[in-house]
Amino acid sequence: MSVLFASKLRFFDTTLRDGEQTPGVSLNPDQKLEIATRLAAIGVDVVEAGSAAASAGEQDAIRLISDAGLPVETCTFVRAVTSDIDYAADNGADSVHLVIPVSDLHIEKKLRKTRVQVTDMAWSSVEYAKSRGLIVELSGEDASRADLAFLKEIYSGGVERGADRLCFCDTVGLLTPEKIAAYIPPLAGIAPLSIHCHDDLGFALANTVAALKAGAACAHTTVNGLGERAGNTPFEELVMALEVLYGYHTGIKKEEIYSLSTLVSRLTGVPLPVNKAVVGEMAFTHESGIHAHGVIREPATYESIRPEQIGRKRRIVLGKHSGSASVEAALHEMKYAPNEQQLKAIVARIKDLGDSGKRVSDADLMAVADTVLAMECKPTIKLRQFTVVSGSSMIPTASVTLEVKGKEMTGAATGDGPVDAAMQVLAKSVADVADIRLEEYHVDAISGGTDALVEVTVRLSKDGKIITSRGARTDIIMASVEAMIAGMNRLLEERT
Amino acid sequence: MSVLFASKLRFFDTTLRDGEQTPGVSLNPDQKLEIATRLAAIGVDVVEAGSAAASAGEQDAIRLISDAGLPVETCTFVRAVTSDIDYAADNGADSVHLVIPVSDLHIEKKLRKTRVQVTDMAWSSVEYAKSRGLIVELSGEDASRADLAFLKEIYSGGVERGADRLCFCDTVGLLTPEKIAAYIPPLAGIAPLSIHCHDDLGFALANTVAALKAGAACAHTTVNGLGERAGNTPFEELVMALEVLYGYHTGIKKEEIYSLSTLVSRLTGVPLPVNKAVVGEMAFTHESGIHAHGVIREPATYESIRPEQIGRKRRIVLGKHSGSASVEAALHEMKYAPNEQQLKAIVARIKDLGDSGKRVSDADLMAVADTVLAMECKPTIKLRQFTVVSGSSMIPTASVTLEVKGKEMTGAATGDGPVDAAMQVLAKSVADVADIRLEEYHVDAISGGTDALVEVTVRLSKDGKIITSRGARTDIIMASVEAMIAGMNRLLEERT
Repeated sequence: MSVLFASKLRFFDTTLRDGEQTPGVSLNPDQKLEIATRLAAIGVDVVEAGSAAASAGEQDAIRLISDAGLPVETCTFVRAVTSDIDYAADNGADSVHLVIPVSDLHIEKKLRKTRVQVTDMAWSSVEYAKSRGLIVELSGEDASRADLAFLKEIYSGGVERGADRLCFCDTVGLLTPEKIAAYIPPLAGIAPLSIHCHDDLGFALANTVAALKAGAACAHTTVNGLGERAGNTPFEELVMALEVLYGYHTGIKKEEIYSLSTLVSRLTGVPLPVNKAVVGEMAFTHESGIHAHGVIREPATYESIRPEQIGRKRRIVLGKHSGSASVEAALHEMKYAPNEQQLKAIVARIKDLGDSGKRVSDADLMAVADTVLAMECKPTIKLRQFTVVSGSSMIPTASVTLEVKGKEMTGAATGDGPVDAAMQVLAKSVADVADIRLEEYHVDAISGGTDALVEVTVRLSKDGKIITSRGARTDIIMASVEAMIAGMNRLLEERT
Repeated sequence: MSVLFASKLRFFDTTLRDGEQTPGVSLNPDQKLEIATRLAAIGVDVVEAGSAAASAGEQDAIRLISDAGLPVETCTFVRAVTSDIDYAADNGADSVHLVIPVSDLHIEKKLRKTRVQVTDMAWSSVEYAKSRGLIVELSGEDASRADLAFLKEIYSGGVERGADRLCFCDTVGLLTPEKIAAYIPPLAGIAPLSIHCHDDLGFALANTVAALKAGAACAHTTVNGLGERAGNTPFEELVMALEVLYGYHTGIKKEEIYSLSTLVSRLTGVPLPVNKAVVGEMAFTHESGIHAHGVIREPATYESIRPEQIGRKRRIVLGKHSGSASVEAALHEMKYAPNEQQLKAIVARIKDLGDSGKRVSDADLMAVADTVLAMECKPTIKLRQFTVVSGSSMIPTASVTLEVKGKEMTGAATGDGPVDAAMQVLAKSVADVADIRLEEYHVDAISGGTDALVEVTVRLSKDGKIITSRGARTDIIMASVEAMIAGMNRLLEERT
C-alpha cells in the first residue's frame, strides 16, 4: 500500500457525547455504561462519556464509567469554564475535551467576544484543567472556518500551558481535501492532533481519512455516525475504509462491529439506515439476478468486505430483478428441485409479484413453487375465527378457533397488548402439533394516517428451520395473524 | 474558488434502475413516470428508466417515460446482448447504458470468459446499438479493479465503433482519491466520461467529486443514495457539495430537492435515515442547548446550508441538553412568559425528563410549564373507559366514555383497523366541543418481539394551532389513545 500514516492511529469515540446530542436521543447512565464497556472491548482508545455540565444524569454517567475501571481513557466535554472542569475532575474523568470557538463567526456572533478574550479563556482553562490533574485535549470549534495564523497561535500557546493534545473540529462539515492540505500539516506539527468531522455535506468520512493521511494522529467518531444534524464520522465506516482501502491494521476487533452498531441503535432508538455502508440491513443483501449470480459464484465480485469479518451474514432475497440463479438457490435451500422449465415459470411469477410492488417472502416463494410444481399444499392450519378485545381497564385478550389437521381447537390468551395476545394464542393453539417459535416480529414505521397499510414481517422457527412470512393490512392485528398463519402453514407443510 | 471543472457537469440519474435494485424496492410503471417527471423538472440530464430485460413491467415503464416527452434523455440499462438492445430500441429509449465487466475477477469468475471474448461482445454491441439509432454510453463494470491498459483498449475501440460516451463503474465501492488520480485523467481523454460510484466503504460522494475534478464530465447518482447494498452516490449530497464546498453552479433547482427526496422515499418505502446529510429529519434540527443558542443568534454558526435553499425548515427541539435559550424560544411560541427563575426551573425539569430517556413533546413541555408557573390545567377531557374489539369476521369497533367538561359522553365508531377505530371514536366524541383534527399519525418501526415498547406520536390541530403529543406502551392501541387524549387536552387547555 502506498499511503502510510504518521504513527499508530488512535480512535476517540464520542457516541456518548456528540452522538447523544442527536435530537430525540437520550441515554441513561446504565445505558451509557453498557455502551462504554463495549467500546472499550472493541478497542477504542478514548470514550467521551458526556458533557458534565449538561445535567445531573450526565455527571452520574461519567462517574459510573470512570469507576468501572474500563481499559480506556474516560474523557468529558467541557467548555472553557472552571465549573465544567471541576465537574469533570470531581466525577473521576481521566481527560477533558476542552472546546473553544476559534472562527471569527463563532467568536463574534455566538459568544460576542474577541479573539483576545477567547484566547485568554482557552489558555487559563488549560492551566486550570492541568492543575486538576486532567489530560487536556484542546479543541478548536469551527476550525475549518478559522484563520490559520490564529489557530497556530491559540493551539501553540495552549500546548505551552500544558495541553497534551489538540483537536481540529469541522463543526459544520465544510472541510474539503484542499482545505485539509492547507490546515492539517502545520497544525499536526504542534502536538498530536485529532480530527473531528461532521457530515453535513457528506464528506465526514473522506475528510477524516484525508486528515489522517495529512498527519492527524487520532480520529473522533461515533457509532453509526450518530450526532447532531447529519451526524459525525461513522466509526464502523472509518475502521473498514482504513482496513480495506488502505490496508491499515487498526487493531479494532472488527468481528464485534455489527453487534456494537445494533446495540447502539437499540439503546438510542435511532434505526440503522437500510442502505448504510457496512452496518445497514441491505449492505450484504443481494437481490438483482445478475449480481446474486455473481455473488453465488464468487462473493468478491459484488462485495468489498466479507460479511463474516464484521460479524454479519450474506442474504439473498428475491424480487422482480431476480434471475434464475438466485431463485434456484433459494428453492434449493427449501428442498424444492424444479426442472429448467418449472424454474423459468417460477421466476416469471416472482417477477410479476415484484412488478406489482410486492416484497417476496419465503412463504410467497413457496406458494409460487407449489403451484408451479403442481404440488397441492394442504394447509395444516385454517383460521375459523379470531377475536381480540382490549381497552383501558382490561387485560388484552384474544381468542381463536383453528382447524388443525382437521380437528377444531379453540383457545384464548392474554398479552402485553392486543398484538401480543394474538401471537400468544396462535402459538399456544398449535403447541400440541409442533413447537413453532416466533423469532422476530417486525413492523415498518407507520406514517401518514391511521388507515395506512401496515406491513408485518415475522420470522418463525421449527426444529432449526427458519422462514419469513408477511402480512399487509390496514389492521395491524389482522396483518400479524395473517403473517403468523401463513408462516406456520409453511413450516408444517404436507404435500400430496 | 480554486478548483475548476473541465466543462459543464452533467447529472445522470439512476434512481429508477440502480436505485430500484435495492432489495425490497419495486416501483410500478406509473410510479416510475411520476419520479422521472420530477427528475426532469429538477434539471437532471439523463434518466435511466430501468433494465429492459428485467421484466415486462420494466419495459412498460421505459415506454411510458419515453412517450411522456420529458425534457430529458431517457436511458436504459442493457447487457452486451442483442435482445437487451432490441428491448431498449423497441420501447423508445434515447440511449443505452451498455455495461460490460472489465476486471479479470468479473470476466473470469462471473462470466467465465476471457478478455478477448468480452472485448468482442462490447464492441459488437456498440455497433449494434448504434445501428438501432441509440446513443451509447459504454460502461466498464468493476473498472476500479481492472487493468488500466485493458480499460484504455476496450474503451478506445468502443469509441472507434461509435460509442458516444464512456462510464467508469466503481461497482463495489473500492475507489480512493489515489486510484482516481491514476485512472480518471487518461480515460477522460478518450471520450466524455461518467463516474458511477457505490458507497460500500462510505466513499461514494467523495470519490464522485474527486473524479469530476480529475476530468470526468458526468456523475451517476440516485435520489437518497438508494441502490444495492450501501447504495450509490446521493444526488442531493452531490449537488449541495458542489454548490457549497466548491462554489459550482449546478443548474439544479435546489429548492425542489427535499420534496423529490420525500417523494422517492414514499414511493420506494425506504425511509430517509434521520441523520442523512441534506435530507434527513435531523439535518436541520437542533437540540443541544449551546448549539441552538448559536443558531438562534446566527444560523450559519451551526448550519452549512440554509434549509430554505432546499425547500426545508429549521426545527428546534428540546431534550436534556437543552439550554435556556431553546426552551425559552419554544415557550414563547406557546405563549408562555416565564420569568428568569421559572425558566430555570422549567429547564431543570426538561433535563430530568431527558435523563430518564424520554423524548420531550410539546405536550410534555406544556405540562412542565404549567406546573412551574403554578397554573392549574384542568384537563378538559378525562378517559372513563375505552374498549376495542377486532377480529377475523367483524368490523373493528371501539367504544369510549369520556368526561368532557364535566359531562359524560359515550360513543362508538368503526375503522379500518382497531387503531383507526380508536382514533375515530375519540375525534367523534369531542366534535361537539371542538374541531380537532389528527394531522399526522406516526409509529416508529417495531422490532424484536411483540412485547416491545411502541412509541406513537400524533400531530393534532385546532383552528390553525398544531401540537405534537406522544404515547408509549407495549400496547399500540392504548399508546395511541394516550397520545390523542394528552394532545386534545393541551389544545383545549383552560387555566385557572
